[in-house]
Amino acid sequence: MLEASPVPIVLVAVLAGAPLPAELAHREATSRILGTALSDGRAHEKLAYLTDRIGHRLSGSAALDRAIAWAARTLREDGLDRVWTEPVMVPRWVRGHEAAAIVAPVERELALLGLGGTVATPDGGLRAAVVEVDGLERLADLGTTVQGKLVLFNKAMGAGLGAEPGYGTVVKLRSEGPSAAARQGAVGMLLRSLGTANFRLPHTGALKYEDDAPRIPAAAIAAEDAELIHRLLAAGDRVEVRLELHAQTLADAASANVLAELTGRERPAEVVLIGAHLDSWDVGQGAQDDGAGCAVVLETMSLLRRLDLRPRRTIRAVLFTNEENGLRGAKDYARRHGGEPHVVAIESDSGGAAPVGFGVEAGPGAVETVRELAAPLAAIGCAHVLDRGGGADLGPLKDLGVPVMSLRQDSTHYFDVHHSAADTLDKVTPRDLDRNVAALAWMAWALAERERPLPTAPPAGAGGD
Amino acid sequence: MLEASPVPIVLVAVLAGAPLPAELAHREATSRILGTALSDGRAHEKLAYLTDRIGHRLSGSAALDRAIAWAARTLREDGLDRVWTEPVMVPRWVRGHEAAAIVAPVERELALLGLGGTVATPDGGLRAAVVEVDGLERLADLGTTVQGKLVLFNKAMGAGLGAEPGYGTVVKLRSEGPSAAARQGAVGMLLRSLGTANFRLPHTGALKYEDDAPRIPAAAIAAEDAELIHRLLAAGDRVEVRLELHAQTLADAASANVLAELTGRERPAEVVLIGAHLDSWDVGQGAQDDGAGCAVVLETMSLLRRLDLRPRRTIRAVLFTNEENGLRGAKDYARRHGGEPHVVAIESDSGGAAPVGFGVEAGPGAVETVRELAAPLAAIGCAHVLDRGGGADLGPLKDLGVPVMSLRQDSTHYFDVHHSAADTLDKVTPRDLDRNVAALAWMAWALAERERPLPTAPPAGAGGD
Repeated sequence: MLEASPVPIVLVAVLAGAPLPAELAHREATSRILGTALSDGRAHEKLAYLTDRIGHRLSGSAALDRAIAWAARTLREDGLDRVWTEPVMVPRWVRGHEAAAIVAPVERELALLGLGGTVATPDGGLRAAVVEVDGLERLADLGTTVQGKLVLFNKAMGAGLGAEPGYGTVVKLRSEGPSAAARQGAVGMLLRSLGTANFRLPHTGALKYEDDAPRIPAAAIAAEDAELIHRLLAAGDRVEVRLELHAQTLADAASANVLAELTGRERPAEVVLIGAHLDSWDVGQGAQDDGAGCAVVLETMSLLRRLDLRPRRTIRAVLFTNEENGLRGAKDYARRHGGEPHVVAIESDSGGAAPVGFGVEAGPGAVETVRELAAPLAAIGCAHVLDRGGGADLGPLKDLGVPVMSLRQDSTHYFDVHHSAADTLDKVTPRDLDRNVAALAWMAWALAERERPLPTAPPAGAGGD
Repeated sequence: MLEASPVPIVLVAVLAGAPLPAELAHREATSRILGTALSDGRAHEKLAYLTDRIGHRLSGSAALDRAIAWAARTLREDGLDRVWTEPVMVPRWVRGHEAAAIVAPVERELALLGLGGTVATPDGGLRAAVVEVDGLERLADLGTTVQGKLVLFNKAMGAGLGAEPGYGTVVKLRSEGPSAAARQGAVGMLLRSLGTANFRLPHTGALKYEDDAPRIPAAAIAAEDAELIHRLLAAGDRVEVRLELHAQTLADAASANVLAELTGRERPAEVVLIGAHLDSWDVGQGAQDDGAGCAVVLETMSLLRRLDLRPRRTIRAVLFTNEENGLRGAKDYARRHGGEPHVVAIESDSGGAAPVGFGVEAGPGAVETVRELAAPLAAIGCAHVLDRGGGADLGPLKDLGVPVMSLRQDSTHYFDVHHSAADTLDKVTPRDLDRNVAALAWMAWALAERERPLPTAPPAGAGGD
């Protein structure tokens, strides 16, 4: 039961064997949310505008500015109670011209994308022999023998649901690899693209330079190119690569988070946050990552407004800026709003495929509660609840003890195109987006309506072990 | 029964109820060919050299010259009876720098590959509005309204075995589209790439300029880009594209077919031809198209030689030059050798996936005969025989009445990477290549050994209807 009703009505209803008024309200909300989301869905239309008319939108780009303005305008046009933006300064990294080629023992162009944040190569590019490793441990074993070399991290990501190694494992090579290689004297770092379909498609993503290591240029190359280098090395050849990256990190740029609310009818100060991130990498259209999440959040707000479903607490949409290369939007939000009572924060940031359920990280009993709330979503295949979840943008809130959740999609093909030129609108269907909206709208409404909030987890660092 | 034996032995054998000596020889050959092909296969090693060490090899390129020298050397080292090359002049088309972008109503780079043989765009490139059609008929309907425009042929190829429209249908857009569009006044032609996996991967291939139309520049764009243009046009926008192609057609270059023989023990003048083409497009590695076929033919010859299986007739390997953009090798071969008695010509030119059977175009009864001969290949899944087949290089021989066949592979994923940068060695497994060698070696041996040749078809044009 979601709602506590006035006692006399409850008693009458129970005596009569009829559904409780709260149950009726609950059922009616379910029916209206699912029915309308699935029959009058407008998320794909929103995603089409964002991807086709605005396009990819890296932090600091004019396209991201346009996306922010469009999102705020859309929320206003959709009649939300309060729509506003909050300024955030974000990093501004610009790719520039890039080229790479094997120059010995054969000559071959490499399909590459510099990693987000990489420094440029020295004037005229660099040329060095390649040392291949399959991970950070193997790199450490090599000590300073990688001095003056290009280190290639060549580890194939598992393709398909649950296949190992997953993104969470291999992404360490991308983020930690450049500084690890640099500490041992490498002059550059190459990464076998973190992706699950081999179509000569490089996948970019952020690196992280540590302060104790020189900043060396780093790029992802297509899986096929990593395999070619592997075969040449396995044959005993010295493989030399020429790498040219003209990336620049400019001064921080002005950006913003976009916020909107459906004000709660009884406890307006208590917030159920639903979020996604508006920025993307600078290739493709950022359709799956995370245009889909933005469209689902925008349309969820619009749907609840259209249905005039005003729950007990406030539902707040947040479209974060700069998730991909800085989390500045997430940090700024937590700084400004972390002190407000958030009953839960839910992010959608794993693409626009069919929703399969939710992930929950909160206090004891939270998973069971969400499972119960998700039960009506079984009809659209979205009732599977895991005891882990959240989203990169929710990290700072989670650290403050806010219960966090993720709307989870079928991610079988997500990493086929993630952070690549092939992350485009055609990969996302209206039907799948509509289901995501149904799931998110229902869950947000139910959590905002429910008398008791989700149990909170102990704040980070407060645990007993 | 494959072989006529001296009468007395046949009689003795039949009377004794024992297998005929010919049957024994037949069984022994099957066993030795399959056993060795599957346990001591060297085709992948050959393909690895061709793709990794030589790479793609368009007609007129230095890489094709190296491939020709390597193939002849390999055949000699493998101990074939006769190895030689036959000079052929081939077209020399050079791609040069290419770029394309949507410039209105939004700005987007397009992933493109100029079509093989395209002329360059005018100095400074061209910029024109796009008119989209789904085929040649629809183009014709538009008459001269396409004047001054870029015509986009946007027809998705069916993905998966037998899906419509197949390559044979959509390839007409690539070959005939440029002249058809030019006749109606178009200034350029864009083609949705003929491919079956959408990863922002353009697929090239030859166009054919007709004499009665101006030669306009033509390029394939990635499926995603064609869909983006479609969506913008469907929204009512005028879509303008800037196209820059710096392709050149230079003077014809010297090239060669590579030939080798296992001389027949009884009828050396009669030829069973097994072939593939050594040239490729100028992207990727030409692994599936048609490095795999070359490796299979080379290894088939090597295997029969290693086993000292010398059939009644001569088995001749031909690695044709210039299949992709001219068929000059095929035409030269037919001109030089068309008068020699060919009992059959078999080509392998549909990739390096597992073999599934053969296609046959010959006289009445030929399909049944090949089906019978292929029966022992059921063990490796390669006994399915169709009544159509051959290969582009065999066209001129077929026109002379020579029975033609194709070794057919599972082509489910062939067009995912065909003519693209992703046609690379990693897509081909040693196991599949070994099976192809087993199938081709057995079929070539059986057809060369069989007393009666395959029935010939009436020469082209001699049919009654």
